Amino acid sequence: MSEDETRHRAKMAKRKALQDAEVAAKTIEKGLLIVNTGPGKGKSTAAFGLALRMIGYGRKVAIVQFIKGAWATGERTALARFDDLVTFHTMGEGFTWETQDKSRDIAASQRAWATAATLLADPEIALVILDELNIALRYDYLPLDPILAAIAARPHPMHVVITGRNAKPALIAAADLVTEMSATKHHFAAGVKAQQGIEF
Amino acid sequence: MSEDETRHRAKMAKRKALQDAEVAAKTIEKGLLIVNTGPGKGKSTAAFGLALRMIGYGRKVAIVQFIKGAWATGERTALARFDDLVTFHTMGEGFTWETQDKSRDIAASQRAWATAATLLADPEIALVILDELNIALRYDYLPLDPILAAIAARPHPMHVVITGRNAKPALIAAADLVTEMSATKHHFAAGVKAQQGIEF
Repeated sequence: MSEDETRHRAKMAKRKALQDAEVAAKTIEKGLLIVNTGPGKGKSTAAFGLALRMIGYGRKVAIVQFIKGAWATGERTALARFDDLVTFHTMGEGFTWETQDKSRDIAASQRAWATAATLLADPEIALVILDELNIALRYDYLPLDPILAAIAARPHPMHVVITGRNAKPALIAAADLVTEMSATKHHFAAGVKAQQGIEF
Repeated sequence: MSEDETRHRAKMAKRKALQDAEVAAKTIEKGLLIVNTGPGKGKSTAAFGLALRMIGYGRKVAIVQFIKGAWATGERTALARFDDLVTFHTMGEGFTWETQDKSRDIAASQRAWATAATLLADPEIALVILDELNIALRYDYLPLDPILAAIAARPHPMHVVITGRNAKPALIAAADLVTEMSATKHHFAAGVKAQQGIEF
């Protein structure tokens, strides 16, 4: 073995020992409250990726879309192949600048939340995705406190993912895992349009 | 209509006009080079979410995993239901601190890249995911230049996603879309272990 390889092995053995100790120190299993926020891409997409992972284990997933109506057609079509495991509730009527009607947006948000509350109480479901809920919260279409209470009262092993920009500080405080997606570089700035399979 | 609602409608009409003008200004359609990097969660998961979206339109996806071997079993099982559309190439033998063998890691990376190069030349494929390629690049297991050349020479409409921490500056420079995932809050810090459906 060369000197470089010996050094590499020693370094990696040390790293593995640290890694193993770290893994051993983590013993808690719990349903996580996950928040994907920030201005970058990948908030909803990562939530759908988690859904895919979960159904790979034969576990049930429920998705409520608070804002997007016509969007997300690609993943909805694909997930239809798992209709034994996935339920899809598209409750939003589009972005709030599309409807231009605050009362209608509030009513749609309330209907979506009523559905979400039922799902959050169902012990059969392993993962509930509340897609773009942060948008409804940001415009104060829904109060945060009853939502946090319902999430806290969910059956223990259930994971919950909430997506959307501008997550409220109280939601971040309650969450177990918060990821901020930031756009280091975005193709829209270079004049590239929304394309099938990428944006929708 | 109340005064608040009238104000809301005016504000949203203005926002919609801006939004529509912005959308109209974007006319370019092209295969994107997408990079998901940063220390936070969701880099690979968002890539798998994009795969799901793409297969929803009946388009082909190929995934090469450069590092993870035993991991990603959930999404692999789920995507097996789409074996008409998705090919999965798990070429890595685990994290480099697991193998502790630099020559073996380099050989595995080279095999993975040979497979990736073939896929990047296939005009039938709509999306190629090079999962954790950034790790192999970071340890200099593979040179970046031939990879950038192969990506640049790919059939025009193909999208490519590269994931992993510490994306190289030259890769970021070449990319159309770069998202940095940062961990605002992470459950591992609170002693929660890796769980089925969330981490693997």
